[in-house]
Amino acid sequence: MEGYSVAGDWGTSRLRLFRMEAGVAVDRCEGPGIAGLAKPPATILLELLARWLDGGPPRSINLCGMVGARGAWVEVPYVECPTGVAAWRASGASLSLGAIPVSIMAGLACVSEPGEPDVMRGEETQIFGAIARNPALGSGQHLILLPGTHSKWALVEDGRVVSFRTFITGELFALLRDHSTLIGTATGGDEGDEPSGFTAGLARAKQGAGLLGNLFSARASQLREGKSTEWALGYLSGVIMGYEVREGAKLMAASGPIRIVGDAKLARRYSAALQESGIEPCVDDGEACVLAGLALAENVG
Amino acid sequence: MEGYSVAGDWGTSRLRLFRMEAGVAVDRCEGPGIAGLAKPPATILLELLARWLDGGPPRSINLCGMVGARGAWVEVPYVECPTGVAAWRASGASLSLGAIPVSIMAGLACVSEPGEPDVMRGEETQIFGAIARNPALGSGQHLILLPGTHSKWALVEDGRVVSFRTFITGELFALLRDHSTLIGTATGGDEGDEPSGFTAGLARAKQGAGLLGNLFSARASQLREGKSTEWALGYLSGVIMGYEVREGAKLMAASGPIRIVGDAKLARRYSAALQESGIEPCVDDGEACVLAGLALAENVG
Repeated sequence: MEGYSVAGDWGTSRLRLFRMEAGVAVDRCEGPGIAGLAKPPATILLELLARWLDGGPPRSINLCGMVGARGAWVEVPYVECPTGVAAWRASGASLSLGAIPVSIMAGLACVSEPGEPDVMRGEETQIFGAIARNPALGSGQHLILLPGTHSKWALVEDGRVVSFRTFITGELFALLRDHSTLIGTATGGDEGDEPSGFTAGLARAKQGAGLLGNLFSARASQLREGKSTEWALGYLSGVIMGYEVREGAKLMAASGPIRIVGDAKLARRYSAALQESGIEPCVDDGEACVLAGLALAENVG
Repeated sequence: MEGYSVAGDWGTSRLRLFRMEAGVAVDRCEGPGIAGLAKPPATILLELLARWLDGGPPRSINLCGMVGARGAWVEVPYVECPTGVAAWRASGASLSLGAIPVSIMAGLACVSEPGEPDVMRGEETQIFGAIARNPALGSGQHLILLPGTHSKWALVEDGRVVSFRTFITGELFALLRDHSTLIGTATGGDEGDEPSGFTAGLARAKQGAGLLGNLFSARASQLREGKSTEWALGYLSGVIMGYEVREGAKLMAASGPIRIVGDAKLARRYSAALQESGIEPCVDDGEACVLAGLALAENVG
């Protein structure tokens, strides 16, 4: 394979594009998220590609994420779980941008016991990329944890995605930080920093009295114990992440090792949360996995 | 007692003032919440009182709520639990507005096992009012549930408040309704109304898989099952309230009957949530209880 292809992770709030040569990202750029674009997606993409067109057009453009959602560019139906990489690859949408073939990969859907629907768009590409990068994931049971705004826990068995579950951890933290009465009431003191708050939050979640009550003590600790805003932010992060680990571990108790696929900073925090519950995870880089997954998309055509 | 007194519940977002004659609210008016006032609290109060001053000044003004918080009008320190009505009445702040005596009642603080701080301002007045209105609450163990932005569950024993716990139920619902990706993604259908969503949310909470995961299915149900925005709002309300009942019931398992003190609409929803867990609550009107509590404040002076 000569020349280059373009791989893209086009989510709600951000587009990340990569120029791929022989499996390596040799250049990259960023663009706007797919939600609320001022111009058509094709126009945005052509503008961003201009920097690379001097050396000729790419062989192909391969995209994953919310770009395939209803109302985005082209709606790509979800693939139902359980599913393996072949069915997923065959379910992408093919279109073209001028003479350049474009593939938009499908998301996954599942129904958890007893009857709760769930969906993902983008994380499936990381999951199949992680399996491609790590042959050990191709056999036996594994849990793959993809932290983020909507954190996903996927159960993988013999290389197939059997089911998954979404937790609104990142979004809930941001809502409470930016919009709630729990933070920034100007009533706090200067006691405690962010890391000690995070540790206290993890410990509180481990006690398991319940999330709705534990959240309020972020505020009460500022009012009554002189805790700082930074401490309270760390506490909220720890307590929410700690409950995610409780819920995830409960649901997926039968499965094997846990692998975190994400950026290094989040992976460190989740590792701490899992270790608090006695679980020692492996970690894989989220960007490397999404590129490995998009390489699978290219090889379809 | 001739003439009249003025009772006021001055919270973060609203002031409710009542003209009291012989224990009866004969007139009322509303004013701004104590947070972010453009004028001093005394000025606001005098402007609102003007309508009643023709018949002479009130004997006294008795206030509860966030008006006694740090940075509001006068900071009134919390009374530590366990506490009874006498210690609470003695802890209010006395000031004056011209020649009119003003009392601002104290909030309560407690530390739950194992070491989680909690606070209330305003609800204690409803609790002591409820006890004054219902002699049966003066002996034995009782749970009093005060729904709202920050829902409070108070354990009362022989007429004393032993401890309490705050759940951010109302605030979390409003945050998810107004600011989250779970609602209003324009991806839903027209399947289901608000009441059926509420019932589905209560049932989901009863299964107890975990709040962070159950919340996400508000979104997934719109995407995958054609559920309407109204259904999803009802579902969120039911699932959050259902988890509050789970957490509250777990914490207070040793106690006796539950009494809801609040407005009729919220009380009906909480009654449904408690009945889903096999608990049959009594209901008392929140406004009647706050007025009964503020009457206790007046009789101090």
